[in-house]
Amino acid sequence: MHLIIDGFGANRQMLESEELIYDLLNHYPSQIGMTKVAPPQVFRYVGSKPEDWGVSGFVLIAESHISIHTFPERRYINIDIFSCKDFDSEQAIRELKDRFELAELKTYLLTRGLEYSHMETVGLKAI
Amino acid sequence: MHLIIDGFGANRQMLESEELIYDLLNHYPSQIGMTKVAPPQVFRYVGSKPEDWGVSGFVLIAESHISIHTFPERRYINIDIFSCKDFDSEQAIRELKDRFELAELKTYLLTRGLEYSHMETVGLKAI
Repeated sequence: MHLIIDGFGANRQMLESEELIYDLLNHYPSQIGMTKVAPPQVFRYVGSKPEDWGVSGFVLIAESHISIHTFPERRYINIDIFSCKDFDSEQAIRELKDRFELAELKTYLLTRGLEYSHMETVGLKAI
Repeated sequence: MHLIIDGFGANRQMLESEELIYDLLNHYPSQIGMTKVAPPQVFRYVGSKPEDWGVSGFVLIAESHISIHTFPERRYINIDIFSCKDFDSEQAIRELKDRFELAELKTYLLTRGLEYSHMETVGLKAI
């Protein structure tokens, strides 16, 4: 399953922190029963527009990954949790909403896998 | 935009090759007008079931990423191209279909961004 979260109105200080993003990517896989295959990679980048700077991070887990992209000036964040193993997506949404103090978020939950001969969107929800 | 591709019936030798996956992640961003912020990370992993081995890789690009997970025994591949900049998703689908000799694929194309106050699925198509 692939959980896609776009969060709005986040706590800006959280989005600015490379350490916080690294720590989340480093510890969250085991919290939801996944196994890292390498340490996270986290970078601060600066785009051509001043408001486009942010922190991007990624961790590979067995057969899948978690990625985060933050936009502190926009108080906006993209989070993807893609895993071949099932996890509690509702709990993940609650935890990440709390962690980044998201005012609003949009989520997709996709089923992806060989066993699904026809993929479909199983959920599209806003909390 | 976030292009999600699940490919079936792929060329097994392509899926087995860490070199090929690295090369794709290393060169594809510039092909579609994106800028890498770090070299790709590519790993071979082995799951608890023998058929679960494969190659996983990702590359961080400005504000976004490309990720690949392969399952050679299943001739199955997951590809995500997530970019804040627009790119030609139809062309990317054609190129990746050819590159991995995909017999069948399922794709999603999502709009993601602060400018979209309400995200929606803009395309769900099988080729």
